[in-house]
Amino acid sequence: MFIPKRILEEKLAVILADDIGEGDVTSAAVIPKNLQIQAEIIAKENGVAAGVEEATVIAEYLGVKAEPKVADGETIINKQILVLLTGDARTILTAERTILNLMSRMSGIATTTRNLTEELEKAQYKTKIAATRKSAPGMLYFDKKAVIIGGGDAHRLHLDDMLLIKDNHIAIVGSAKEAIHKAKANASFTKKIEVEVTTPDDAIKAAKAGADIVMLDNFAPFQVKETVEKIRKSCLDRVLIEVSGGVIADNLLDYAKANADVISMGSLTHSVKALDISLEIVRD
Amino acid sequence: MFIPKRILEEKLAVILADDIGEGDVTSAAVIPKNLQIQAEIIAKENGVAAGVEEATVIAEYLGVKAEPKVADGETIINKQILVLLTGDARTILTAERTILNLMSRMSGIATTTRNLTEELEKAQYKTKIAATRKSAPGMLYFDKKAVIIGGGDAHRLHLDDMLLIKDNHIAIVGSAKEAIHKAKANASFTKKIEVEVTTPDDAIKAAKAGADIVMLDNFAPFQVKETVEKIRKSCLDRVLIEVSGGVIADNLLDYAKANADVISMGSLTHSVKALDISLEIVRD
Amino acid sequence: MFIPKRILEEKLAVILADDIGEGDVTSAAVIPKNLQIQAEIIAKENGVAAGVEEATVIAEYLGVKAEPKVADGETIINKQILVLLTGDARTILTAERTILNLMSRMSGIATTTRNLTEELEKAQYKTKIAATRKSAPGMLYFDKKAVIIGGGDAHRLHLDDMLLIKDNHIAIVGSAKEAIHKAKANASFTKKIEVEVTTPDDAIKAAKAGADIVMLDNFAPFQVKETVEKIRKSCLDRVLIEVSGGVIADNLLDYAKANADVISMGSLTHSVKALDISLEIVRD
Amino acid sequence: MFIPKRILEEKLAVILADDIGEGDVTSAAVIPKNLQIQAEIIAKENGVAAGVEEATVIAEYLGVKAEPKVADGETIINKQILVLLTGDARTILTAERTILNLMSRMSGIATTTRNLTEELEKAQYKTKIAATRKSAPGMLYFDKKAVIIGGGDAHRLHLDDMLLIKDNHIAIVGSAKEAIHKAKANASFTKKIEVEVTTPDDAIKAAKAGADIVMLDNFAPFQVKETVEKIRKSCLDRVLIEVSGGVIADNLLDYAKANADVISMGSLTHSVKALDISLEIVRD
Amino acid sequence: MFIPKRILEEKLAVILADDIGEGDVTSAAVIPKNLQIQAEIIAKENGVAAGVEEATVIAEYLGVKAEPKVADGETIINKQILVLLTGDARTILTAERTILNLMSRMSGIATTTRNLTEELEKAQYKTKIAATRKSAPGMLYFDKKAVIIGGGDAHRLHLDDMLLIKDNHIAIVGSAKEAIHKAKANASFTKKIEVEVTTPDDAIKAAKAGADIVMLDNFAPFQVKETVEKIRKSCLDRVLIEVSGGVIADNLLDYAKANADVISMGSLTHSVKALDISLEIVRD
Amino acid sequence: MFIPKRILEEKLAVILADDIGEGDVTSAAVIPKNLQIQAEIIAKENGVAAGVEEATVIAEYLGVKAEPKVADGETIINKQILVLLTGDARTILTAERTILNLMSRMSGIATTTRNLTEELEKAQYKTKIAATRKSAPGMLYFDKKAVIIGGGDAHRLHLDDMLLIKDNHIAIVGSAKEAIHKAKANASFTKKIEVEVTTPDDAIKAAKAGADIVMLDNFAPFQVKETVEKIRKSCLDRVLIEVSGGVIADNLLDYAKANADVISMGSLTHSVKALDISLEIVRD
Repeated sequence: MFIPKRILEEKLAVILADDIGEGDVTSAAVIPKNLQIQAEIIAKENGVAAGVEEATVIAEYLGVKAEPKVADGETIINKQILVLLTGDARTILTAERTILNLMSRMSGIATTTRNLTEELEKAQYKTKIAATRKSAPGMLYFDKKAVIIGGGDAHRLHLDDMLLIKDNHIAIVGSAKEAIHKAKANASFTKKIEVEVTTPDDAIKAAKAGADIVMLDNFAPFQVKETVEKIRKSCLDRVLIEVSGGVIADNLLDYAKANADVISMGSLTHSVKALDISLEIVRD
Repeated sequence: MFIPKRILEEKLAVILADDIGEGDVTSAAVIPKNLQIQAEIIAKENGVAAGVEEATVIAEYLGVKAEPKVADGETIINKQILVLLTGDARTILTAERTILNLMSRMSGIATTTRNLTEELEKAQYKTKIAATRKSAPGMLYFDKKAVIIGGGDAHRLHLDDMLLIKDNHIAIVGSAKEAIHKAKANASFTKKIEVEVTTPDDAIKAAKAGADIVMLDNFAPFQVKETVEKIRKSCLDRVLIEVSGGVIADNLLDYAKANADVISMGSLTHSVKALDISLEIVRD
Repeated sequence: MFIPKRILEEKLAVILADDIGEGDVTSAAVIPKNLQIQAEIIAKENGVAAGVEEATVIAEYLGVKAEPKVADGETIINKQILVLLTGDARTILTAERTILNLMSRMSGIATTTRNLTEELEKAQYKTKIAATRKSAPGMLYFDKKAVIIGGGDAHRLHLDDMLLIKDNHIAIVGSAKEAIHKAKANASFTKKIEVEVTTPDDAIKAAKAGADIVMLDNFAPFQVKETVEKIRKSCLDRVLIEVSGGVIADNLLDYAKANADVISMGSLTHSVKALDISLEIVRD
Repeated sequence: MFIPKRILEEKLAVILADDIGEGDVTSAAVIPKNLQIQAEIIAKENGVAAGVEEATVIAEYLGVKAEPKVADGETIINKQILVLLTGDARTILTAERTILNLMSRMSGIATTTRNLTEELEKAQYKTKIAATRKSAPGMLYFDKKAVIIGGGDAHRLHLDDMLLIKDNHIAIVGSAKEAIHKAKANASFTKKIEVEVTTPDDAIKAAKAGADIVMLDNFAPFQVKETVEKIRKSCLDRVLIEVSGGVIADNLLDYAKANADVISMGSLTHSVKALDISLEIVRD
Repeated sequence: MFIPKRILEEKLAVILADDIGEGDVTSAAVIPKNLQIQAEIIAKENGVAAGVEEATVIAEYLGVKAEPKVADGETIINKQILVLLTGDARTILTAERTILNLMSRMSGIATTTRNLTEELEKAQYKTKIAATRKSAPGMLYFDKKAVIIGGGDAHRLHLDDMLLIKDNHIAIVGSAKEAIHKAKANASFTKKIEVEVTTPDDAIKAAKAGADIVMLDNFAPFQVKETVEKIRKSCLDRVLIEVSGGVIADNLLDYAKANADVISMGSLTHSVKALDISLEIVRD
Repeated sequence: MFIPKRILEEKLAVILADDIGEGDVTSAAVIPKNLQIQAEIIAKENGVAAGVEEATVIAEYLGVKAEPKVADGETIINKQILVLLTGDARTILTAERTILNLMSRMSGIATTTRNLTEELEKAQYKTKIAATRKSAPGMLYFDKKAVIIGGGDAHRLHLDDMLLIKDNHIAIVGSAKEAIHKAKANASFTKKIEVEVTTPDDAIKAAKAGADIVMLDNFAPFQVKETVEKIRKSCLDRVLIEVSGGVIADNLLDYAKANADVISMGSLTHSVKALDISLEIVRD
């Protein structure tokens, strides 16, 4: 993902201002004005760094010098210094929690994603891990960026990204075929069309009807395998197979072995385990 | 927490607009205009309902009728209908993910909090569970509300809420005593002063220096007990004891038994396990 | 395109507030308070109606009753009443120019687009007319909606919609092939990839390298024909051919005859001829 | 027009952020990080430069160095370099379309305005060309600035600028005289009062009643002449005569010869013909 | 002043949200949910009502029924009920201070203005009282509206309203004459030009150079008289004379007697004496 | 109070943009482009400086160099130079009124506050002066900061700061005791609880029920004295006594002598007397 630094700064400024309210009453009362300090952002457990760019942009936005000691995507270990901050003490303490909240969440997401993508790579599968839109409201940009940093695919960010015809659409329209027919007639040619199906037969029908991507919802690995083979037989090689629902770390390789192109997992972003990261004043 | 409904609506409208982008291309292409439908928001696992008010406000904001079938804070079970929505099909499908993301996160937080507060209540302890400011950026209002719904205490929402003198403040100022002295001299009399300490002795000193709340950071239960007893002996009964760090479900009662007034847990909001909730079109 | 009415209202409220400034000094001085009037929005020339939904939403937002007499997309003739407004005189006069500016621009775009799409339909070509991102800044949503109303395709709304590899990208990367290779490796599988080319050979190479859409930049009709035939021979039927640059009303059918799938025209939105529409008080 | 650079920057940042959405997926996938490039903004046809200041402010806002090679208002020719940009490749490509859309529209407006004002100057008339509020919604500031750059008058920007009593106001109040009477009684003395009239007699009445400016709506040149002469005879020299409606390039001099002070033309801003301007990477 | 109710609502919603922060912790803890109450907004001293429209709009925005018992501009007396509110107790108490702050400030301004305008009217002078731009930042719209309600003139609201050439402009340009010359050459014909002068001679020069309004800065009444007479002799009757600086209640009539057209007073808005107004729950 | 400079800048940018509208038409027409000047912000009467930080931040935001000659809180005298500005003439003149309005208001508040706090200090009382939430809407942050600069206490900024149980809450709940009971049960332990009472007896009851602060509403000094003594006798030393209503400069020392801890005065912020401050171009 790429957004010019200044536009990213605007996004982060909103988050920061929201957190600060009418100002940090503790720093105002306790910390001297214009005191220059150094502080380290430190990992408290092993994982994958993410949010380093965000921490840097927030710090620089506030006039605090930020020296990243790792890049987003690097493996980090407990006690490792991630970013060195130099600047006004009150300002650093005011921004501390916003920076840590972003880094902890993003690094947590990147770490979980990396664990899954590495498992697939080690077993030499080409199956991709993808996120979903199940996330903390308002966090989609940062959550998806963390998934990418962890080696995953962002999938849709917004409802305007791609057509994803789900069970509820089909329930209203009557059939997946009819929904795909309408999609091809009405949507822009610039958009891909993905369809959620619940049986291997429906998957073939959807592919034949023109879906670019077929999402197999809560399929067992053997059903995925069967579906992929049928698709290949029908010479619909251009159609991507996405598996969603029921995939956990334990059965990940079974799905990969079944030749799914993509495995999407809501838990990557809706049930994040934050990575423990803290900020410490450097004492000379 | 109380915010007039229209002000809450404004908060939610921002989240919603952010998610919608330039509109739902799937509904636009596939779903007929002005089609009235009914949809149910349904729990897919047991827990505590939260976000029902938010779901209702979002729906009504969009002109969709919302009939809550449970109130925030009620226990819910798998397959239970939480809210019944009636209105324009495109609109309901466009809002689906924002509503579910909010409800899943808030209900997940409320459920975890309730489990902890119930355990304390069953054992007849008066110790409270409290949140921290470790949360998904921008979600503090909703996360804290969910903690309250689950029976917990919101703690600080923003940096302007209360003085919380932490290790980094003390590192800069030199001592907790000096920091409390400055806090009492400079801060408004309307604010409480909390101080984080790392030893029982420091806790007593902080209480004597005028702290309203003393936060025991990473204390073992026996240290908490020792500190509480010393505080009581020193006739500092007005001082509240908050324990933070190292508390998990397994040792919760040990800390409660040690007579902590409050146990605050960052994981309540930084590592949320979303409750599974989905939306289904009602088929006649 | 579909955005829930309330979200559309928010977009329009910003435009309206911007135009009103500190209020309508003329109405304040000249028009009595709380005077109920009727006003008609009237076409002053023939064309295609667009912006009727926007006019209605603006009016209702301001508490003015709006009765559309035509739907977006209908053919309208000089002197035809498009919308009947009933409400507070000062409010109607304050909103008049914003409503008319939107309707005139959108109807102008829809009319031009319809003229082109009808010409293609009459000649029984399946070629589509599409817009580009060349528009008045900030107007992209409304301009694209008008193109769709006129029978055209919206193409990309934002830079996050689809990959469009243009001459400048290729100039930096070195070759279209390399750019497509990078695009497939780095972009989400949910996005289509379009590539701009300047020769028939490059078009074939791009298609073979995996482009979903090939944009022929400033091709003569005979070159388009040649390219399409080569693509078909190479069994790359899934690849769409978009023609851009140099197409005007006079040679439109030549390009359609050459079997272009899509013809995109910047002039649809960057050089709009507004349709003449005015508002008149109804005198009894 | 003058707005401090930082305030202009804020206006432009909104437009830019709107266009970028969640980021440029093409540049993110295809263009290397932190690659420094040079790019030229180049005229593709003859005209008058406008939007150069805006292009510069956008570029500098994003950390891209901008060297203007022409100033706003200068005559430019096909292939002329207007601005040289130096900076991060991804950032330049992300901002390309917003910059070009602004410059093309503003230069188009300035060019058309200049053609008209030059014709009047060559014939040695003092008649001014003015814009109206008929514009693309949200673009009024930039459109009016372009008119001024082309030698025209901005006229009203917002409804709070001046009183302009139009046909609809008069229809409600009963007569122009009564409307002017109310205007003088109720409006601030800091505001001018303009009145739209449809006959020479009404023009005289309006001038006598105290209008500062009389707008002759859809008058033929001979009627303008007659009106101006009557005004002069009535010793109402302070009253300005504005002609609106029916003026085109072909009859412009006839109206000027009739001694109109101002000719206002909606087409300047509602039916803009964009000037062709593009951005090209500099290849060494 | 006239702004459609919904646009006014948007302005007020910003003020309200700013005051409420994360919600009214007192009402949330103490007041039952969904309790319907009545409350009266009551004058605690005599004066002129203003802000009644604002109070009504805020209340209705929040879903509280508002029955105004007086109109803006009416004389009110101690203990008089101004508005009756009926609705949710928590909501009314949350909005109480914002409503009272607006009404107290606006009524204070209207009362002071009315006292001055009445004194002039009683003495049968036509001299007007006007505000300046010296106000509480962000309050200009409401302050000016209150001045108008009190019978005064709003003068400029923003820097884009009218040209006001002040001492600092003249200091830079060299002379008032040169400044007026530039103003007439460069500014839109839709704008009036006012010039600040410090001697009667400069006033005449400014009037002759084309100023629409001449502001006599810190003139004694006899100097005003002398200036007005000279202006009249020079047949510059169209020029308005504004007096600014040094005018207080005690010498107001002297300036009026000297035939100033307008007396502008910064103290009306920069040193407001709020009118005492409170809100009381109705007990049955 | 402490807010990082960039966040303060954002607050001030909103105020500034609001004032500027579509730009300074006077400077645009009269003042040359890119003219460098110096200007002095000068006190026109004696007082206490406040808003110097705001003036500096606004100037620097606009690219104007600002050299403060006094610090916020310093005593200033008539004709003293407060800030020296160096930069673009048009920009300085555009920002002049916003800067002066902020400084005049804040310095006026600081001066009044200082006069009261100095009187208390001279008489060697420890009683504090505090502000209330009675202020110009939207100005609370700056007004409270000015009170602190003048030596006073900010009291609550927003409704989420502290619980303040007032007459209207008690009227609804039934008794202060019940209200305090609910407050302690429902509110976060991080919040203080203040209760407004109207008799000495109620004050004691409130203190015993657990109020942290008791506000004596419209008490005579002898009643304050009686209440304080009773509180002391009841060993409720931790309870603060705040006096509100009826305190003026003349009886201030009587209340202080009665041993009130805090005297809060709405007039500090609702009826501000602005300090006269102006800006003058430096002529060489």
